[in-house]
Amino acid sequence: MKRAELIAQIEKKKSVLCVGLDTDIKRIPKHLLNESDPIFSFNKAIIDATVEYSVAYKPNIAFYESLGDKGWSALNKTINYLNRTYPNVFTIADAKRGDIGNTSKMYAEAFFETMNFDSVTVAPYMGVDSVRPFLAFEDKWVILLALTSNAGAYDFQLMENENGEALFESVLKKAQKWATPEQLMFVLGATKTEFLERVRKAAPNSFFLIPGVGAQGGSLESVLRNATNEDYGVLVNSTRGIIYQSSGEDFAQKAGAAARELQKQMAAILF
Amino acid sequence: MKRAELIAQIEKKKSVLCVGLDTDIKRIPKHLLNESDPIFSFNKAIIDATVEYSVAYKPNIAFYESLGDKGWSALNKTINYLNRTYPNVFTIADAKRGDIGNTSKMYAEAFFETMNFDSVTVAPYMGVDSVRPFLAFEDKWVILLALTSNAGAYDFQLMENENGEALFESVLKKAQKWATPEQLMFVLGATKTEFLERVRKAAPNSFFLIPGVGAQGGSLESVLRNATNEDYGVLVNSTRGIIYQSSGEDFAQKAGAAARELQKQMAAILF
Repeated sequence: MKRAELIAQIEKKKSVLCVGLDTDIKRIPKHLLNESDPIFSFNKAIIDATVEYSVAYKPNIAFYESLGDKGWSALNKTINYLNRTYPNVFTIADAKRGDIGNTSKMYAEAFFETMNFDSVTVAPYMGVDSVRPFLAFEDKWVILLALTSNAGAYDFQLMENENGEALFESVLKKAQKWATPEQLMFVLGATKTEFLERVRKAAPNSFFLIPGVGAQGGSLESVLRNATNEDYGVLVNSTRGIIYQSSGEDFAQKAGAAARELQKQMAAILF
Repeated sequence: MKRAELIAQIEKKKSVLCVGLDTDIKRIPKHLLNESDPIFSFNKAIIDATVEYSVAYKPNIAFYESLGDKGWSALNKTINYLNRTYPNVFTIADAKRGDIGNTSKMYAEAFFETMNFDSVTVAPYMGVDSVRPFLAFEDKWVILLALTSNAGAYDFQLMENENGEALFESVLKKAQKWATPEQLMFVLGATKTEFLERVRKAAPNSFFLIPGVGAQGGSLESVLRNATNEDYGVLVNSTRGIIYQSSGEDFAQKAGAAARELQKQMAAILF
């Protein structure tokens, strides 16, 4: 997907919402366990109920990988369903991959060809040749980890060099030489409130994928006031705040209501 | 597997060789393409031909993931074959995973439970809570990226803080507080010759997984002279130097000969 198409969807839906599909077989409503593919049934119902309010979907690959063959099959069905039914939605494989060049190329083929995701999250530790193979695919995106939402972000990402530049700033700076904002986004945790403006300053034109609103404690308002740019420039992810609102027959309806509520808050501030 | 068992295998085989199973459907001998599962047939033949000289096997997960269902099925058969036929061999899922806690837990389940690997490679960028869930499994190992073999290692891993400590040294230092050398190894690229002693000094008791000998240009002798410790302390990986020695019917025989040659060089220096 091109950047202009993503922005058009944001304007159409008045939303920067991304729904995380961290679908856990132990947490989905019990009545779905009778279905032939409970994970896909859950995802499909969640997508259908939230797509009016959401511009992006982000399956968390770990949750599928942990189920082996069945998980990969459910993931395949989910991305195929999204591509077929809602082709204007932006899709994110949250995989946090990254390896030496010939190996990153294989991961890129997995997520961009074998499956047809628009983007994949990538870890920066191994540097440019671990990222570049993902950039070789037209209209496909790398979403590079910069400052993550978890507590462990403080272990290395804030380490400063002699010029006072933190590791996450070096990542932002170098990576913008590797690709344009038409193909490269960054992960910025909503929980890192005190850094939102600093990150925006370091990457003024880039889109940020922002997890950490809701269960992890980040503030939506603070993100929308401090991390956006004139192209909106953010995709705000919510997972547990949407997909696990009910364990009954009404789980999808409740997910839809939660997505609508977030979309309303977004529209009130952004539009 | 326990550290003592790994050391016992090293002494028995007089080898610290790890064979990388980066099995690429485009590179395996053509006659295997008639088999029902060419990837597994290739792996099985390579394992059988090299196991006398090798203490560890390292499937590179990207190569399997890029093939979708078929790849995961071949990977499953490979790890099951290793566990059943050669239970004393140390197995490494080269996956470079790492995410927030609840997600890393899912990856740990994927590689330690759904599949029964002894170890998984993990990227350190997201810090302690991205690593800890992998450490909750008894006799299972984390192999944390420290200084990698690729050119991109120079982008961030050598960045120094105000005390002159490089990022890879911070990773080595902090991570040793998270786990003992009974459960934690580090990745150290053989190509980073000038840093081998410095890394050994920073983690005197740890095992290192050392890729980069052969196709990537690292020197086996330099690794064995500068990065070992009194427990040997290294697993030296070779992939392209072993598994793609021939594209004919004799591919396994040639792989066995290449592994034996490396084992001889190792024995001459270490024993």
